[in-house]
Amino acid sequence: MTENLSLDDKAALTSGASWWHTVALPEAGIPAIHMSDGPHGLRTQDDQAADHLGLNQSAPATCFPPAVTLASTWDTALAERVGAALGREARAHGVHVLLGPGVNIKRSPLCGRNFEYFSEDPLLSGILGVSWVNGVQSQGVGASVKHYAANNQETRRMTISADIDIRTLREIYLPAFRRVITQAAPWTVMCAYNRLNGVHASQDHWLLTEVLRGEWGYTGLVVSDWGAVVDRVKALAAGLDLEMPSSQGAGPARVAAAVRAGDLDEQALDRSVARIAGLARKAATDPAAAYDRDEHHALAREVAARGAVLLKNDGDLLPLDAAASQRIAVLGEFARTPRYQGAGSSTVNPTRLDDALSAIVAAAPSATVTFAPAFGVDDPHADAAALREEAVRQAVAADVVLLFLGLPPSYESEGYDREHLELPDEQTAVLAEVLAANPRVAVVLANGGVVRLFGWIHEAPAVLEGWLGGQAGGSATADLLFGMANPAGKLTETIPVRLADTPAHLTWPGDDDHAVYGEGLFVGYRFYDAREMDVSFPFGHGLSYTRFAYSGLRTSTGPTGVDVTVTITNTGSRTGHEVVQVYVGAPGSRVRRAVRELKGFAAVRLEPGRSRAVTIRIPRDDLAYFDLSTGSWLVEELDYHVEVGASSRDIRLSAAVHVTGDPREPALDADATLAEWLAHPAGGPLVTKLLARVRETLGDAYPEAGSARERGITSMRLSQLVQLPGVPVTQQDLDEMVAALDAQPSGQAALDAQPSGQAALGA
Amino acid sequence: MTENLSLDDKAALTSGASWWHTVALPEAGIPAIHMSDGPHGLRTQDDQAADHLGLNQSAPATCFPPAVTLASTWDTALAERVGAALGREARAHGVHVLLGPGVNIKRSPLCGRNFEYFSEDPLLSGILGVSWVNGVQSQGVGASVKHYAANNQETRRMTISADIDIRTLREIYLPAFRRVITQAAPWTVMCAYNRLNGVHASQDHWLLTEVLRGEWGYTGLVVSDWGAVVDRVKALAAGLDLEMPSSQGAGPARVAAAVRAGDLDEQALDRSVARIAGLARKAATDPAAAYDRDEHHALAREVAARGAVLLKNDGDLLPLDAAASQRIAVLGEFARTPRYQGAGSSTVNPTRLDDALSAIVAAAPSATVTFAPAFGVDDPHADAAALREEAVRQAVAADVVLLFLGLPPSYESEGYDREHLELPDEQTAVLAEVLAANPRVAVVLANGGVVRLFGWIHEAPAVLEGWLGGQAGGSATADLLFGMANPAGKLTETIPVRLADTPAHLTWPGDDDHAVYGEGLFVGYRFYDAREMDVSFPFGHGLSYTRFAYSGLRTSTGPTGVDVTVTITNTGSRTGHEVVQVYVGAPGSRVRRAVRELKGFAAVRLEPGRSRAVTIRIPRDDLAYFDLSTGSWLVEELDYHVEVGASSRDIRLSAAVHVTGDPREPALDADATLAEWLAHPAGGPLVTKLLARVRETLGDAYPEAGSARERGITSMRLSQLVQLPGVPVTQQDLDEMVAALDAQPSGQAALDAQPSGQAALGA
Repeated sequence: MTENLSLDDKAALTSGASWWHTVALPEAGIPAIHMSDGPHGLRTQDDQAADHLGLNQSAPATCFPPAVTLASTWDTALAERVGAALGREARAHGVHVLLGPGVNIKRSPLCGRNFEYFSEDPLLSGILGVSWVNGVQSQGVGASVKHYAANNQETRRMTISADIDIRTLREIYLPAFRRVITQAAPWTVMCAYNRLNGVHASQDHWLLTEVLRGEWGYTGLVVSDWGAVVDRVKALAAGLDLEMPSSQGAGPARVAAAVRAGDLDEQALDRSVARIAGLARKAATDPAAAYDRDEHHALAREVAARGAVLLKNDGDLLPLDAAASQRIAVLGEFARTPRYQGAGSSTVNPTRLDDALSAIVAAAPSATVTFAPAFGVDDPHADAAALREEAVRQAVAADVVLLFLGLPPSYESEGYDREHLELPDEQTAVLAEVLAANPRVAVVLANGGVVRLFGWIHEAPAVLEGWLGGQAGGSATADLLFGMANPAGKLTETIPVRLADTPAHLTWPGDDDHAVYGEGLFVGYRFYDAREMDVSFPFGHGLSYTRFAYSGLRTSTGPTGVDVTVTITNTGSRTGHEVVQVYVGAPGSRVRRAVRELKGFAAVRLEPGRSRAVTIRIPRDDLAYFDLSTGSWLVEELDYHVEVGASSRDIRLSAAVHVTGDPREPALDADATLAEWLAHPAGGPLVTKLLARVRETLGDAYPEAGSARERGITSMRLSQLVQLPGVPVTQQDLDEMVAALDAQPSGQAALDAQPSGQAALGA
Repeated sequence: MTENLSLDDKAALTSGASWWHTVALPEAGIPAIHMSDGPHGLRTQDDQAADHLGLNQSAPATCFPPAVTLASTWDTALAERVGAALGREARAHGVHVLLGPGVNIKRSPLCGRNFEYFSEDPLLSGILGVSWVNGVQSQGVGASVKHYAANNQETRRMTISADIDIRTLREIYLPAFRRVITQAAPWTVMCAYNRLNGVHASQDHWLLTEVLRGEWGYTGLVVSDWGAVVDRVKALAAGLDLEMPSSQGAGPARVAAAVRAGDLDEQALDRSVARIAGLARKAATDPAAAYDRDEHHALAREVAARGAVLLKNDGDLLPLDAAASQRIAVLGEFARTPRYQGAGSSTVNPTRLDDALSAIVAAAPSATVTFAPAFGVDDPHADAAALREEAVRQAVAADVVLLFLGLPPSYESEGYDREHLELPDEQTAVLAEVLAANPRVAVVLANGGVVRLFGWIHEAPAVLEGWLGGQAGGSATADLLFGMANPAGKLTETIPVRLADTPAHLTWPGDDDHAVYGEGLFVGYRFYDAREMDVSFPFGHGLSYTRFAYSGLRTSTGPTGVDVTVTITNTGSRTGHEVVQVYVGAPGSRVRRAVRELKGFAAVRLEPGRSRAVTIRIPRDDLAYFDLSTGSWLVEELDYHVEVGASSRDIRLSAAVHVTGDPREPALDADATLAEWLAHPAGGPLVTKLLARVRETLGDAYPEAGSARERGITSMRLSQLVQLPGVPVTQQDLDEMVAALDAQPSGQAALDAQPSGQAALGA
């Protein structure tokens, strides 16, 4: 719709009115839009207390576990329920748009904001993002998928250019956005602070218009991250509809002036205004909206329990018997003072807060529970030796030790990155002494980004990675420790042996304004697999108190994808969830590809002894790679290697699946190589004829077919043949070949005409 | 000089007349230039037998050891002697320009042409290139430093784009060229086949003109690699003077037409013509020129002996006693049929050829020498089991085994790359069985690129890496095995544990037309050090039959560089050469830098018990990194870490050396970050004042000085302060700051005026 507004009014609409609100034009029937930080809870501030640092307190809201924990459930239904709960809270607070989900890829474990992101894998990030958005928007509240794109570090985030080759961008850093946008239609997309290949995301026409709207068909609103606009006029021209927050009139003044000067197309402004006005009219406020705090707290507890990852559990140390009369030493400040969310704009003021210590005491009434803080948290005045001594004393006296370790709040936050993966020294010192005093130790971790485990992980019999558990994390931990809940979380990022092993190590966080993404496609497990490296725990790993068997792999291919069916059996004695993972490799691909890529998954709940056949569908499009020469997605004809497993390195079953490919016909001329001509459906026969003549003339001097030396020859440009002494090829020959190729009907058309259809899937 | 020639004559001069000759214009006093392949020997063909594949035989010439072997001597005097010998042979053959040296960096051990290149390190490559060129040109023959630039793979070399970030290009892939060009003034520079960041090297104006002539002051001739020209007109405009070989008139016709059509500046043509005519007139032919074949053969033998690297020698198995009455089993086809050079355009038709077997028999008259081929070389019909059986039989009967292993000729060549680092299976099978039969085995390797040793290297007590030894390699091997020569070679490239560990593994050899150099600066040992990885043998490694002690490290800094002095003592019982290596690290650098980089070296000859103080000078410029923000080389003020060692991982002595830095004042505006303002000499005080006001207003909400959170704040753009609620900064404040900065005299000027001079070196 076009708005019948003055230029100044239109310009005014394209910047915020305040920190959290857009401009209202009541006479035109355009109300203000109210936005609020997310994504794991509402941070509703009035505009007077507004900040983007998470410093000023907001209205109480349920603090759900952050994205790292939610993602570790691999449970789309759960993510959607959390989204719906957030939507209900938003409505109750009069918020129209909730700023989430964050689907940026965890390029390095050092990123200070990793706790807000889902995974190192784009498919998993995208699928969870879709569910979350569907949940939020089911309540008539808009989502804002962020930060578009490649905001993968906090260091110099306002100026850094993420320098990423196109294939990596297409296959790793954009797919989660693409999936959320095309499958969940979020009301808004938030552009990132950083630059992408030298261009500010806020003024990148390719990103905000060509790809987002042109390729993905997005019709919603693009909003800036708060303060991401550098040049408001360029940003608007690029497709950035709404600048947030208020620029105190500066942005609108520049926009209006640029239109008047003819430097900005007024139609671009009109399009943005239409989107803003449309969203403002859609954004309803329901004064009667409310939510049940207890229900939401219970949901937060469920998610925290499902998202914790049982990394190891030697000798089935866990779960503890809640009914037993035993001495339990609960050690570590985090048991009393939970580390339950990250810092920055996502900081929620929780409606209540459970601590693990109280929950343990409540869960095990027959036990004798002692507690010692064991170490100080962000406390330079703590007496480490004395704290440790008391902890060891309690460990000696206990039947079992529950040691709560984790990253102090100062270690990770929006706004800066970590510089190492280590726990504080005083914590590892406690661990070592406690283990020496009493080997029956279960470590419970609280951290938003992964920490180095190598070394001590071999000593501690049981380790539960609780991530950041949200406001009910403490009680969820007790649920897990005593078996009221059965661990089911799986890692959505690799835990590396050491920092020097991580994919981005050599170029993180970049020099000056440039971060070169040198590892390319090989992010996360793709890197460790390609380099055949050991890791502490692989992507997808997570134990349960029960066991699952995999059997009966079947695959079937059709024109739209591959169905992978497998039977999962709970062979243990407890009900549990298993996250079944499907990976696909493309051996023999014409381009470099990952050894395996996650292509599907399902969280399956099974009672002891029960089996279920699970079918996971891989859409054919998800097998494509981005072909640089033709600038398009391409499915290759290959025997794809389908693997089904309990982690990326615990593959239980595998099968080869033949998929028929898309035709690939890059443009050819005389400066293309002989190999390119040979591989071309129409060019191949032409150049084969020519080479036969060359072979005839050269005789034995011509290399053997298929030899490495022949590959050397065929890497020559066709045009080079003319210069070779004794080779009977003239310029005229080449001109005729190029003309003959141009005269052919396009191969695509020819293939489409075939009844069998080379583009069809399946043999 | 400008030539008084017709346009057509000028155009004709800019392309070859034939495969090896340029166009002669006798009436204008311009003779033809005669060129010949190199670089380790002459490949002089008449134009009728001309080819660029190394298939047709050339006139006999001394086959010196290829670059891989010459470089392993780390001996500049020796490299210059080889150059001079090559120059003499060129003159004797009427050759005016010898096509070498190849100073491309060994990015991956898989490159099929690595045998023609010096090193994975740019300093070492450049220094050896300078010596080689000085040697050749001392004889009145021109050199052609090649392949400019970034021709680091053979796969799709005609079309591949080496996609390299600017700092990596400046610091890794260009420095060897820069050094040779600025220090040795080669008559010609040969442009590469490949593209660089999308642009054909043959038509890259930035590369061929801006950098080469503008920055480096090159005044010589730029010639194309044979067939590298794609668009002759664009190439000429970019600075490519001479197209080789003949394009059968096509190139000149296009050039003349382009000038006539006004599409090509005739001055560009005139400049190229002047360079071609100038070189043609300088290129003298001396019918009386000759050389002594025996002398050159002896030099080839000396180089082969000096370039071999003794990788291990447990229990001092080597050298063998030449006078002893012992049974020696010489095993392996390579002992009889030497693998002594690589394939392709560098293939030399040797004046004679020594084999190791004959040389061993001659060297040890009292020994009983048996021989078995042990395996077939490039022979699919060989009976591997029978060959192995006979080898084992001889091993059992011998006192000591000399087992000659290596890469068959088909494994490595110009024109294609290897796909793995393995020796043929039949060779490792022989090795295993021979070792089981007789543990006293010295392995002698013949290969141009490194092979994987991991696994068997732990079993074999002695391994001599002979590389490709040239025509006298066989006798040089005997010299080493019996101690007539003492091993002194050091690795100029890392021997990795496995292929998956290599720096370029993830992006080699690229997809379609693009090879992304994702490892960036971290090539060779820079990679293994930065990632803290094990290697089989580190860069710089090599044993001797004697031992060397390092002592008395002293450093002194002056305005032009750092002098590193160390005393080397031969503590063993044989005369030997030690290659003393100086590495420098830049801890605390503002950008990511290698842990250590080679900055100097010296080959020192010492008799037993003798000591010598060696001074190695590090020019101050060699400490610089390429600063992207200012587009210039910059020496940082740091305590540089100077290490002196026998290899990159056998550091014997180290010291910190303080070097005063260059001023760094990037351009600043309101969109620069607070951190950039704070770091700026003139901007710092301005923004500090502003931030004091902010701090005063925010009170406790402002982060602690030096905290990670403060780094988050200072990563904001100055202009973002205006948008922050409650922060007392206005647009006017910013405008005033930018104006105040612009009004300052440039910091550079201010510093130049200081008598003490911040740019001076030393504290």
